[in-house]
Amino acid sequence: MIEREVKLKLKSPSLEELEKLLERRSVKLDEEVQEDIYFNYKYRDFKDSDEAVRLRKSNNEYELTYKGPKTGNYGKSREEITVRISEKDVQNINIIMERIGLYKAFTVKKTRKNFKIDSYIISLDRVEGLGDFVEVEGQDVTESQLKDFFQKFIDDFQIKGEVTNISYLELLLRGYDKSK
Amino acid sequence: MIEREVKLKLKSPSLEELEKLLERRSVKLDEEVQEDIYFNYKYRDFKDSDEAVRLRKSNNEYELTYKGPKTGNYGKSREEITVRISEKDVQNINIIMERIGLYKAFTVKKTRKNFKIDSYIISLDRVEGLGDFVEVEGQDVTESQLKDFFQKFIDDFQIKGEVTNISYLELLLRGYDKSK
Repeated sequence: MIEREVKLKLKSPSLEELEKLLERRSVKLDEEVQEDIYFNYKYRDFKDSDEAVRLRKSNNEYELTYKGPKTGNYGKSREEITVRISEKDVQNINIIMERIGLYKAFTVKKTRKNFKIDSYIISLDRVEGLGDFVEVEGQDVTESQLKDFFQKFIDDFQIKGEVTNISYLELLLRGYDKSK
Repeated sequence: MIEREVKLKLKSPSLEELEKLLERRSVKLDEEVQEDIYFNYKYRDFKDSDEAVRLRKSNNEYELTYKGPKTGNYGKSREEITVRISEKDVQNINIIMERIGLYKAFTVKKTRKNFKIDSYIISLDRVEGLGDFVEVEGQDVTESQLKDFFQKFIDDFQIKGEVTNISYLELLLRGYDKSK
């Protein structure tokens, strides 16, 4: 699957205010508490190759995801391949990955509230150590469709902020590097 | 988990005769049609490192297994770590493995009939291209306990054959190499 998304560091309104607006003007989906363990690789630095391997705990479900290098000019598009892991197998998938040279590099924790408008998923993310973000993900849409929808969405909801295509992991690593 | 097993290439009686004997004198468990895809690794030749990564289809269930190098003097003991994969995720786990450098090297197909005596699992294996084998696996037993049980088992059932600690994969690869 190709995931196509655009992300904005939220300045205004506040995440809580935007949530109230979305509750009135969109379809509310689920709320998730996500804990993402990102792996790096003994044989290939994922920071250089722009890949990611992630074990996500979302509420009480687990999934292993591979993300390919980013492509496209607007927002962020990348191959994303996911396999569900049962809770009893989480320890074992960690061991298998370790045996083939993947090691835990960083953990990203966030709360995510999902809404839907047309075929787009709007996620309100509060990320530990980074702050509040809005992500808009298109399902089987072109870059320009996503761009048009996103522009209309931030105009309608009077959202201000900074668009970024840098992942939470990379943003956290940059902050982490700075603090050294 | 450490798997401790001993395997014998069956000469006599025939697999069918031994099956009839076991049906009378043990607890019959399940029958499986297994198709094992073995991977090799771009970064580390598993033939040299004596490891294995296997995706097994057993009846209609799938599991991913890592096997560590063999240890011990009698039979075969090795670390074995398994994660269940749902049918809908099989294609995705294959893609993830390919992305991190694991490629499909060989497929081993067999039928397996399982029986239980005390805490030991007896498997009657008919392996495509290799013939008939008997495997005895001990659950949490020492090497000498397994050895004693196995000796008593082949005496009781008047089994003749050749004990080997070479995996089906390696046996098939040797035959494959010879045919070149």
